Amino acid sequence: MKQKELKVALLGATGAVGQRYINMLRDHPFIRLEVLMGGESAGKKYGEAARWLFPEPMGDEYAQMEVKKSRTESAAGCDIVFSALPSEVAKEVEPAFARAGFPVVSEASAHRMEDDVPLVIPEVNPDHLSLLEGQRASRGWKGSIVTTPNCTVMGLAMVMKPLVELFGMDKAIVTTMQALSGAGFPGVPSLLVVDNILPYIKNEEEKVAREARKILGTVRKEGRSKVIEPLELPMGVSCNRVQVIDGHTETLYSEFPRAVEPGAAVRALERFRGLPQKLKLPTAPSQPIIVRTEHDRPQPRLDRMAGSVPGMSVVVGRVRRGIDDRSLMLTLLSHNTIRGAAGTAILTAELMQREGYIG
Amino acid sequence: MKQKELKVALLGATGAVGQRYINMLRDHPFIRLEVLMGGESAGKKYGEAARWLFPEPMGDEYAQMEVKKSRTESAAGCDIVFSALPSEVAKEVEPAFARAGFPVVSEASAHRMEDDVPLVIPEVNPDHLSLLEGQRASRGWKGSIVTTPNCTVMGLAMVMKPLVELFGMDKAIVTTMQALSGAGFPGVPSLLVVDNILPYIKNEEEKVAREARKILGTVRKEGRSKVIEPLELPMGVSCNRVQVIDGHTETLYSEFPRAVEPGAAVRALERFRGLPQKLKLPTAPSQPIIVRTEHDRPQPRLDRMAGSVPGMSVVVGRVRRGIDDRSLMLTLLSHNTIRGAAGTAILTAELMQREGYIG
Amino acid sequence: MKQKELKVALLGATGAVGQRYINMLRDHPFIRLEVLMGGESAGKKYGEAARWLFPEPMGDEYAQMEVKKSRTESAAGCDIVFSALPSEVAKEVEPAFARAGFPVVSEASAHRMEDDVPLVIPEVNPDHLSLLEGQRASRGWKGSIVTTPNCTVMGLAMVMKPLVELFGMDKAIVTTMQALSGAGFPGVPSLLVVDNILPYIKNEEEKVAREARKILGTVRKEGRSKVIEPLELPMGVSCNRVQVIDGHTETLYSEFPRAVEPGAAVRALERFRGLPQKLKLPTAPSQPIIVRTEHDRPQPRLDRMAGSVPGMSVVVGRVRRGIDDRSLMLTLLSHNTIRGAAGTAILTAELMQREGYIG
Amino acid sequence: MKQKELKVALLGATGAVGQRYINMLRDHPFIRLEVLMGGESAGKKYGEAARWLFPEPMGDEYAQMEVKKSRTESAAGCDIVFSALPSEVAKEVEPAFARAGFPVVSEASAHRMEDDVPLVIPEVNPDHLSLLEGQRASRGWKGSIVTTPNCTVMGLAMVMKPLVELFGMDKAIVTTMQALSGAGFPGVPSLLVVDNILPYIKNEEEKVAREARKILGTVRKEGRSKVIEPLELPMGVSCNRVQVIDGHTETLYSEFPRAVEPGAAVRALERFRGLPQKLKLPTAPSQPIIVRTEHDRPQPRLDRMAGSVPGMSVVVGRVRRGIDDRSLMLTLLSHNTIRGAAGTAILTAELMQREGYIG
Repeated sequence: MKQKELKVALLGATGAVGQRYINMLRDHPFIRLEVLMGGESAGKKYGEAARWLFPEPMGDEYAQMEVKKSRTESAAGCDIVFSALPSEVAKEVEPAFARAGFPVVSEASAHRMEDDVPLVIPEVNPDHLSLLEGQRASRGWKGSIVTTPNCTVMGLAMVMKPLVELFGMDKAIVTTMQALSGAGFPGVPSLLVVDNILPYIKNEEEKVAREARKILGTVRKEGRSKVIEPLELPMGVSCNRVQVIDGHTETLYSEFPRAVEPGAAVRALERFRGLPQKLKLPTAPSQPIIVRTEHDRPQPRLDRMAGSVPGMSVVVGRVRRGIDDRSLMLTLLSHNTIRGAAGTAILTAELMQREGYIG
Repeated sequence: MKQKELKVALLGATGAVGQRYINMLRDHPFIRLEVLMGGESAGKKYGEAARWLFPEPMGDEYAQMEVKKSRTESAAGCDIVFSALPSEVAKEVEPAFARAGFPVVSEASAHRMEDDVPLVIPEVNPDHLSLLEGQRASRGWKGSIVTTPNCTVMGLAMVMKPLVELFGMDKAIVTTMQALSGAGFPGVPSLLVVDNILPYIKNEEEKVAREARKILGTVRKEGRSKVIEPLELPMGVSCNRVQVIDGHTETLYSEFPRAVEPGAAVRALERFRGLPQKLKLPTAPSQPIIVRTEHDRPQPRLDRMAGSVPGMSVVVGRVRRGIDDRSLMLTLLSHNTIRGAAGTAILTAELMQREGYIG
Repeated sequence: MKQKELKVALLGATGAVGQRYINMLRDHPFIRLEVLMGGESAGKKYGEAARWLFPEPMGDEYAQMEVKKSRTESAAGCDIVFSALPSEVAKEVEPAFARAGFPVVSEASAHRMEDDVPLVIPEVNPDHLSLLEGQRASRGWKGSIVTTPNCTVMGLAMVMKPLVELFGMDKAIVTTMQALSGAGFPGVPSLLVVDNILPYIKNEEEKVAREARKILGTVRKEGRSKVIEPLELPMGVSCNRVQVIDGHTETLYSEFPRAVEPGAAVRALERFRGLPQKLKLPTAPSQPIIVRTEHDRPQPRLDRMAGSVPGMSVVVGRVRRGIDDRSLMLTLLSHNTIRGAAGTAILTAELMQREGYIG
Repeated sequence: MKQKELKVALLGATGAVGQRYINMLRDHPFIRLEVLMGGESAGKKYGEAARWLFPEPMGDEYAQMEVKKSRTESAAGCDIVFSALPSEVAKEVEPAFARAGFPVVSEASAHRMEDDVPLVIPEVNPDHLSLLEGQRASRGWKGSIVTTPNCTVMGLAMVMKPLVELFGMDKAIVTTMQALSGAGFPGVPSLLVVDNILPYIKNEEEKVAREARKILGTVRKEGRSKVIEPLELPMGVSCNRVQVIDGHTETLYSEFPRAVEPGAAVRALERFRGLPQKLKLPTAPSQPIIVRTEHDRPQPRLDRMAGSVPGMSVVVGRVRRGIDDRSLMLTLLSHNTIRGAAGTAILTAELMQREGYIG
């Protein structure tokens, strides 16, 4: 049976993440990017409105499209709306689209922590989509809002998932070395990062801990509606900005209730598969977590585009004993604007369609 | 009373760290760099032998000095020998100088972990110098070897000292983002670090844990000789190389046997003073640990030369609660070739002289 | 005779160049920075208003100063006004101060090319200050505006000066590799410069040619007033932005009406002295142009702070034959925010005072 | 008619450029990389011998190949030998292979300037291959040596070709900003390029001028043999190393015997096609020179992989008037290890086969 085409409208199309959608959807088998929406640039051609940041050409079909206003009428006829809006804007705009009947898949942080809003990584917690029924009912929406996590928690939560499931986890201490593209465009001034590290990213550490716990949490019935019971996990997080274009690197120290062999952890990570792999969704990498055994991997420039769908796999290396046989250390890398943003949103849309949440 | 002049010979004078000694000793009140020793460059003028790496000019007095062979005769008449040799070379060469009667202060890792060799940070464990008597006796040396720690453990051990002393410490999890100069010259190929991070530094993680425990250990009598009882402290360390010229940045998560307020930790760090401060040694910074309260400090480019003796203070920031009231997180920065190498060796020599270990 | 104190007000104090003034005037023998003026930050303390960009601490005396509005009343009692304003703002604000009686020394491009406004490098064309009399007369101002050149033309014009004077010059082809700080703060987004070059800087190439010709021009009487006869010199300029914090590097190919030995050019450059050197002004470097003979100099990181007043000397290297004996090639480097901005403005003020243009 | 397979042996296989061949030949329609030769690594598997520098995986078929000694016997059965050897080694080794009957296509500089050795860019001077008959005759070789140019002259000579041909050229002044990969691996130490520019590359400027003149020269009969009459063109070249991974950027100022409109030059560049395009060789980009009209292009990170065969097109921008109507300025970019090395060598082999120089 041929896959039904999915017509898509994009909020925040001219920004750095918006551009990543265009790059990724160019050759998608059934998702069609039909409407590009922007703020001040509405009315211009996309080719003039966007300061294109990629080596791959924008493509004439997009360059010629008119940027529309960020209003629900602009998206008329679309099956789904992707939102790459800044959080302050998303707060008002996204509910308007949901109210008007659109399923919204958003990367903005605005609604992530609301009780009835799923925060989804398709490989990790696809069952959280079941919140949507309650969301629609209680808010009286015809549409809905699904969110995807912060770019820093994305790879981390994927790596934690099989470890938590197989071994439990008592504690997680994380230090990140994050890429410049994570701050958007224009983002970080060059004067601040040459020969330097920025040892702080605003609100980031709180988001990482909070979102990881929600993503790894379990769905529980509460009366007629469903809620997420967050994972109870003490986490300590230190976020740093370094001079890398794409790819967040993170060190993870974790403690377990019983002894865990590094080799067992490696196997758990390598064998991890999720629903998207089972369903063979087009943006699902065949192996969500790739484990490298060389001493000096992962490296952002070499590994951020690894895997069968470039940029969608998390690469893990240096899996080793921590301070004793009940603790482990490892280093992970994930592409912050593909797996950490546009890619996971697209994968979520693919999953929602297959699971009947769209159309 | 006027300070007696100290004549110094330098092993490994042409390398990156060797050059740092020249920079730091240029205007020293009583240490005179009299002899520069090198390997293959012996016989050349220093100005031709060294690929000078600093903006500050080498100075004609050094440019004209002849590089001598790394033999004990070269150092005749000197009161002390600094060694900036690579470890493999140090293994053989340093004992030869000690045997010949020279007090050797070495940055090489070769002898650091030997039982009767002090591994010293003058502010942290000056009492470890008391091993020297036993060292001379058992080895039959007229001279001696004192070592200074690895550049990555230096700032870390200084920060841990007041915390361990006041609050005890149960566990330390450390992630480092280390500067390029830590790898010497030519060191890290540029192709490996542009738009990249190297998530591994050979042997570094073991050194950090091992040396920290020895430095923070206590002197114990064992029969007629003294030994170091290392601190028992579980440590997990992840070392990374980033694109920074000078200055190692490190995140530290630590656990304590009882509740520790971040404010109490800040006070402990700020008030920390050592013997060098008491003795007003010329290379001792008035404040060994500087605590910044801004969210986004320390930064290597802005803070590595902080303090009254530039590059000799460790700068700490982001002191905050960890996962509960018995854990803390902070970020520290120390200059890896000043505090982390030449500076601490010079300070050690100053201390040894004042304490009667030289001459 | 003791030097009279010069009280100074600074327009644009919170910006990147404004901060450089504070750094340079901290220990000035007779210039006192009394008033800091800003735009939106007026009313705040300077320590809160400025995002301080330097390793050297701001200093508590400045941190506590209140930022004043950019109005003439704010500068009451000051002898001179420095302007580090953006050009659009300078256009209106600077004439207001001149009208109110203040001698204004400006780095903004707004008034540089006006007929009666001197564009001055104190070593190169101090006689252009003689335009001021006519400027005051024709504009009916009690004060005046003096401008200093664009940061890219500064070092170039200094190097051209002795060559033009001794040998004449028929043609100059210049390619620049400019530092990030030349674009101010926040300036160039980091995403644009990592692993990259920007081969274009808006309006820069025109400025370089136009300003160089005016600076190297001669004062001519025209009726009762004076005008500048620009140097007739065909110039081709290509401006690029590279990943360097401070220090503009430029290659210069030049043709001459007759044969010029590279050695003769080197001597001309090394011997070049200007009026500031003769007058021993405090910010005048003893040698305005330093020539390096090593193959691989000048380098921005090593040479930008060269000379007796760090950052005020231009460093030249690789002086060599061009395509024949009537052409030369060389590479020059000058610090773009010291010699290229604040330093030359301060030196201009020192000169104006000595020459009786102030007070 | 199906293309006959071409079996290839590679000298210098483990180096940075050697690796680029493997990347480019992976999916070649008829060239098969059968033999990898190395120096000290002979006997090891390629996967162990090479420090792989690319994000694309090496591929198991290559990882398992044994590295052979750099001897003619190793290449037995191969149709052609590519040489990515360092020049000192190439000097002895390449003639041995030519003597033994192999057509050698070399990137080394060792033989480039010899009278009977073609220095070829297939789009620019394919007729220079006609030197080979004389080369074989006079040297008594059954095989031959063809060389490809230095990576810096490659893009430059391609851009000069149509300009020289249509308008003549009187003078060329070039400044380069070269990528790190041009220095091979380990190449440039990272300490030298962070926050810095290196204003000198050994022997590079002479090579650029000398090789450009030979490539743009004409074949002339001299008795029974043929020689190259170099183009008479005064050139001034300044070479710089900047912090870019791949892609040499160059500014070109050029003078012409008569007026040349920038628009005419743009058309000449855009329309330029060579024999490889006519023959539709697999590694020939459909458009050898791409002209960008945006102000701020070409940029290395965005444009180095442009074109139908990524990395094989030269990208030109900023074409504009020079100092008068008989001069032009422009900026060009070419990928230094694809167009500037492996790619042009492969394209040369494709051309030689089609023209009957192989087999």
